[in-house]
Amino acid sequence: MKILNKTILPQGFLASGIYCGVKRSKRKDLGLIYSEFASIAAGVFTSNEVKAASLKVCISQLKNKESKAIIVNSGNANCFTGKKGIKDANSIIGFLAEELNIAKKSILIASTGIIGKPMPVDVIKNGIPKLSQELNKDGLKNFADSILTTDTFRKVCSVKINIGNKPVIISGVAKGAGMIYPHLEKAQKHATMLVFILTDAAIKKSLLQTALEYAVENSFNSISVDACTSTNDTVLLLANAAAGNKTIVKKNKDFAEFCKGLSYVCQSLSQTIIDDAEGASKKIEILVQGAKNEKEAKTAANAVANSDLFKTAMFGGNPNWGRIVAAIGAAGIPVDEDKLEISFNSHKIFNKGKINPLKNKKLLVVSKFIKVNINLNNGSSESKVYTCDLTPEYIKINAEYN
Amino acid sequence: MKILNKTILPQGFLASGIYCGVKRSKRKDLGLIYSEFASIAAGVFTSNEVKAASLKVCISQLKNKESKAIIVNSGNANCFTGKKGIKDANSIIGFLAEELNIAKKSILIASTGIIGKPMPVDVIKNGIPKLSQELNKDGLKNFADSILTTDTFRKVCSVKINIGNKPVIISGVAKGAGMIYPHLEKAQKHATMLVFILTDAAIKKSLLQTALEYAVENSFNSISVDACTSTNDTVLLLANAAAGNKTIVKKNKDFAEFCKGLSYVCQSLSQTIIDDAEGASKKIEILVQGAKNEKEAKTAANAVANSDLFKTAMFGGNPNWGRIVAAIGAAGIPVDEDKLEISFNSHKIFNKGKINPLKNKKLLVVSKFIKVNINLNNGSSESKVYTCDLTPEYIKINAEYN
Repeated sequence: MKILNKTILPQGFLASGIYCGVKRSKRKDLGLIYSEFASIAAGVFTSNEVKAASLKVCISQLKNKESKAIIVNSGNANCFTGKKGIKDANSIIGFLAEELNIAKKSILIASTGIIGKPMPVDVIKNGIPKLSQELNKDGLKNFADSILTTDTFRKVCSVKINIGNKPVIISGVAKGAGMIYPHLEKAQKHATMLVFILTDAAIKKSLLQTALEYAVENSFNSISVDACTSTNDTVLLLANAAAGNKTIVKKNKDFAEFCKGLSYVCQSLSQTIIDDAEGASKKIEILVQGAKNEKEAKTAANAVANSDLFKTAMFGGNPNWGRIVAAIGAAGIPVDEDKLEISFNSHKIFNKGKINPLKNKKLLVVSKFIKVNINLNNGSSESKVYTCDLTPEYIKINAEYN
Repeated sequence: MKILNKTILPQGFLASGIYCGVKRSKRKDLGLIYSEFASIAAGVFTSNEVKAASLKVCISQLKNKESKAIIVNSGNANCFTGKKGIKDANSIIGFLAEELNIAKKSILIASTGIIGKPMPVDVIKNGIPKLSQELNKDGLKNFADSILTTDTFRKVCSVKINIGNKPVIISGVAKGAGMIYPHLEKAQKHATMLVFILTDAAIKKSLLQTALEYAVENSFNSISVDACTSTNDTVLLLANAAAGNKTIVKKNKDFAEFCKGLSYVCQSLSQTIIDDAEGASKKIEILVQGAKNEKEAKTAANAVANSDLFKTAMFGGNPNWGRIVAAIGAAGIPVDEDKLEISFNSHKIFNKGKINPLKNKKLLVVSKFIKVNINLNNGSSESKVYTCDLTPEYIKINAEYN
């Protein structure tokens, strides 16, 4: 696998991104991805019981055999917009199908932005001709910009793998930056994390889905900005077979190589989402080891990642490990004082009942990346999640946002 | 029932509170309650799997037939302090037993403060003689002050009820103000909320426990400051029969009257904890109605109360009802757009699919008490919880606290 410095579209894909009028800020707000060749899709969605209209329509469209295009707007979530929201999403698909002269059933859709506002369908309709005209092989950056909301930078990643002797490209693009605690399931979930991954690999549709579900578990399903699972979280993966590799039809070496590349792209994008978390000043890695089973490990790691008391301590660079203990216990996980170990970066602050205070108090204050290692010494399972500190800037962003 | 303007100790109780040296701030840090007569106790404790040493000792002491005194320190939680923590709590009980010349088994203990620091036993031992000498009938205020940590004011409440023709007093005292999301159970839980309730009623020990468990459910178990359940939460209730009423031995009218008075005290104290929540600028009442069952109602109410996105919106007076919907859905509760109603104070902002924006945008900005009413219209159960907004001041307090 080769990580590409320049983010490129895989063969046969075009993209574009424009400002059409959804956002008051006049930043780009409408994006399009298009495959020149027949293409298949996989997808995972939020587990939130409330799902955006766009997402419901997307889940339904994903059942079709072929998917040639994805249209995405930012600035309006098209969520809690009733039957009109469903109609609006279908109308947008209809306008695009006409413009591109492709079947409606081959179009996927996603939205992000404010919940409960009617979609400005006419504004989007008026933007579609320009959006379509601007489709081009170097359009990924414009697309990546068009899906951002409170993000402060574009999130893209490309890798090259070899399937047989054919080079295959996997490129991903994502947006964060708040309401980020994805719990992605097959055709069941949504949040305001949007991710689109494109590949020219030739692969069977069911295996594409399997690879995606596997890749999201240790990437997007292992990050949390604010413990708030959105109504719009969507990860879509398109594969158009343009690389000409021998089609992957079973879980062989080629499938493993594809999974490796896909996992890298998902992990890289999930990291950039945390790097750009709303208001954050520090990135935090929480590794829980020695858990009884994987569920316990992930529950413990998420409990710490989602504790406001822990996150505010991290903001202050305050090594208050007691809040880690309290968070794990509050999640219903037994903690044995004589077995537990806790480290901040490489300093073991609590070692099986013994406290070893941090002498250099500035250490966590100046650190921009804090690794917290928690060993329950109660089993052999582990889990790693990423989060950020909770800052006054996060409050400012979300008190004002509307 | 009569709510007393002046907080008094019930007959036969004495209290005191002093500074002995646990806190660096030199504020009062050691408190004592003492009953001159034989007295029985009930208690509920945090459900956190991690329990403070003081709390473990208290749970064990509570099994004894008689409880004559409660000693409480603030500034050190005596939590995650291993076997030494247990030994320290027992030593403190031993010193007090000697000083007061009462049985060790009649002494209860509670602690609040920083987790993971060894108890300064000698400092407390040296304070005990003065603490004991200062016991008096007007000592409740000093006691109430001695248990505070980040609280900004003393929390007390007294009511007078009649059992038969005998006046009975129920007085309570509490502390907050962060790591507040109590889940109190019979002899199973802890957090950093401490509550001590005293009554001169004559009542059977098992009924005292039943009354307490009933009273905490809609009071302390229905508040959240920061969704963090502490390792030290303790509610203790002492009854010394000094009122001379006919002993309550069954669930009759007298028991109902006692429950009513006790519930009032618990609700009043839980409200003052929210009034003094760390950094809060607004108090928020969340009433969920029309739920399928009580569990669903409470899950929905807590999901909203614990959503950082909702709480930051409230800080800004931003009526972002979409975050309410997202929080309920993320908790796994289905929401029907055509049935749901949401009100801020008395303004119905979402009514069964129709959005009715708040015209006076200043309304929530200036409001210090916001009532959020959510009707799922999906059943007949309801639940009410209290929380507060999330503010930069909360972050400041908890980033620095150590």
